[in-house]
Amino acid sequence: MNNKIEFIENGSVTSVPGFKAAGVTAGFKKSGAPDFALVYSEFPAAFAGVFTSCTFAAAPVLLGREKVLAGGTLRAFAINSGNANACTGAQGLANARKSCEIAAEKLNVPASDVVVASTGRIGVQMDMSLIEKGFELAVPALSNDGGNDASRAIMTTDTVPKAVAVKVKINGVDVTVGAMTKGAGMIDPKLIAPHATMLCCITTDIAADNATLAKLLEPCAQDSFNRITVDGDMSTNDTVILMANGRSGVAIAEGTAEFELFREALLSVMQKLAREMVMDGEGATKFVTVKVINARSVADAKLAAEAVANSLLCKTAWFGNDPNWGRVVAALGYSGAEFDPANCNIYYDETPVVRNGGDAGTPEADLLDVVKKREFVITCDFGEGRGEYWVWSSDLSHEYVTINADYHT
Amino acid sequence: MNNKIEFIENGSVTSVPGFKAAGVTAGFKKSGAPDFALVYSEFPAAFAGVFTSCTFAAAPVLLGREKVLAGGTLRAFAINSGNANACTGAQGLANARKSCEIAAEKLNVPASDVVVASTGRIGVQMDMSLIEKGFELAVPALSNDGGNDASRAIMTTDTVPKAVAVKVKINGVDVTVGAMTKGAGMIDPKLIAPHATMLCCITTDIAADNATLAKLLEPCAQDSFNRITVDGDMSTNDTVILMANGRSGVAIAEGTAEFELFREALLSVMQKLAREMVMDGEGATKFVTVKVINARSVADAKLAAEAVANSLLCKTAWFGNDPNWGRVVAALGYSGAEFDPANCNIYYDETPVVRNGGDAGTPEADLLDVVKKREFVITCDFGEGRGEYWVWSSDLSHEYVTINADYHT
Repeated sequence: MNNKIEFIENGSVTSVPGFKAAGVTAGFKKSGAPDFALVYSEFPAAFAGVFTSCTFAAAPVLLGREKVLAGGTLRAFAINSGNANACTGAQGLANARKSCEIAAEKLNVPASDVVVASTGRIGVQMDMSLIEKGFELAVPALSNDGGNDASRAIMTTDTVPKAVAVKVKINGVDVTVGAMTKGAGMIDPKLIAPHATMLCCITTDIAADNATLAKLLEPCAQDSFNRITVDGDMSTNDTVILMANGRSGVAIAEGTAEFELFREALLSVMQKLAREMVMDGEGATKFVTVKVINARSVADAKLAAEAVANSLLCKTAWFGNDPNWGRVVAALGYSGAEFDPANCNIYYDETPVVRNGGDAGTPEADLLDVVKKREFVITCDFGEGRGEYWVWSSDLSHEYVTINADYHT
Repeated sequence: MNNKIEFIENGSVTSVPGFKAAGVTAGFKKSGAPDFALVYSEFPAAFAGVFTSCTFAAAPVLLGREKVLAGGTLRAFAINSGNANACTGAQGLANARKSCEIAAEKLNVPASDVVVASTGRIGVQMDMSLIEKGFELAVPALSNDGGNDASRAIMTTDTVPKAVAVKVKINGVDVTVGAMTKGAGMIDPKLIAPHATMLCCITTDIAADNATLAKLLEPCAQDSFNRITVDGDMSTNDTVILMANGRSGVAIAEGTAEFELFREALLSVMQKLAREMVMDGEGATKFVTVKVINARSVADAKLAAEAVANSLLCKTAWFGNDPNWGRVVAALGYSGAEFDPANCNIYYDETPVVRNGGDAGTPEADLLDVVKKREFVITCDFGEGRGEYWVWSSDLSHEYVTINADYHT
């Protein structure tokens, strides 16, 4: 990481000058926990968005895509948890539009400058009186340090709120990037441009147009949220919105050193949140990086890394502190990646596990030392080319089964 | 099912005249449970085989493929449980060949007429003294009613042995098909011709050449073992061997009614065992058929059915008796299948769940009545074409996690 990028203590979306936020209890959650978040830009912000690639995309996703394609500016991003507004047809879409109109009225901004996102139960029509109530409570509560409240209001099965901000000096001027995210289950995002249930709001005071922001957001999503998996289940509602209000006065254009530095700052924020999502994955006790190197192609490396990262047998072995590498090779073998097992070496952190497709002869106790750690890296070296890919995954525990067998959404 | 096909009580591989079998304790399993099975044909048998498509195929699989390609006849099929002989390199292959030679000597048959299969721990060289002991004990124990002993000796995490036999009259003559199988975890077979850990031995007294048997075995594997998933993890060792000794005197050739009738008998045996494998899947408490109909293509139907069948969120919901159809639509949506959600209807057994991509309005209690059953069918009707596919799956329980987090192979 570039050492010019500095993490801000207790950073959040409101660490960026010009952004306010609030988190309130509208009543979607029976528990009475906060369930409605609003992020507000005092100035019209350029923006970009990436969304789930699930065919059953939720109404707010359909609307969000529309807005990204239409262009323009953004003033507000509202998120409710407790109802996903997915599989709700024309009525659901009308409700999502209505939410934007309510926001517009209460905030005195154009309805076209509002996007909404939802997470929670699928297939239930939105109770619009709760949306009304959400805005009624959130608008007066908007504040310059409301980012952490907002990050708590978007949680579902998350055990901790996830917010972050960094500062980076570009041409001698401080530029800030703040963000919040949620998501602990139904996590295997494949975010694509307008077109996980992870929801993420990123704010910044860089000056850039929508097209430039899109060129930053899409590859950064590829290298952060699209690299994580908790359960291999992609959501109907995954949404990431990036808003840039330009207040730092620092403008960036593709191909410049400033662009590259800002990209690093943005990526560091998104990777930090992506890591936190896996760490806080439903029932997760381990954070495992699966890395495939020297594959014939990046596509082969990706197939192989994702197969291991999503293997139930690997994930349960990690939970059980079991060095069982037979499960890793089986997953590599069925991944569809092309490679010759005889060239394959595997390492747990730096400890050799498999050499030339067979047992490397490392004593089991040494392997156990690695796999009983909270966090370790499995590197699979195919020894055949230059293709490389990595994925962040969690283990599969009893707690995951408990959460998901008992979670009557 | 053709009503001419009759299941034999306590049927097994030795229900077929001319086949003997034994199951003994060679010492691979620390528990002292039987761990070595031998199936012997008194007469040279035509044969066919299908094997795992895992790149890390085990030594006995490599050898088995070789034998299928070389052709000829088969006299014996030996299976050990407790050591997979996978990722064991040249030494492993030499050991598998040596096993065939030991069998040849003890049975007084050519070594080229023997195939072996293994299941158990990956990456450990075979203790050949145990193989020796296996044959020493099994050969004198071979008997005309040893099929059930053999089916117990191949179990690993299976809780029940799996054996079956059927009789079918072809041209007035009784033809018998017997079989045994094992496999409860690492189960998502994609068996292909010479090329799950499921192991299966099928015996019959039909008269057919190897090429004809291959034309029967491959499509029947597609419609039985390749339709099941317990954990989505394909094994390094999956092997199915079909042996036909011709003793019924009934000969079959492709394109005849006799061939078709025999195919039905063979398929009924393989489907029965495939169902039993899912029913006995590690920790399984449910048997769920996921069926996709009226898709744009069979490929779309397959993608969609397999995504639901392998979804952790769907599988944990089934375990929890949770009708949560949001997880089903999410899986359909990320499957990669092409379809319009607005045309999608879903049923739990015959009860409507989703209509035109949204809630069908069936009271939750009615859905609960279905999903709390031991066995039910989820039908996803895409309403767009004629593509159809089904998969048999199990739920994901605490017991699965316990078995696989604690199973130090």
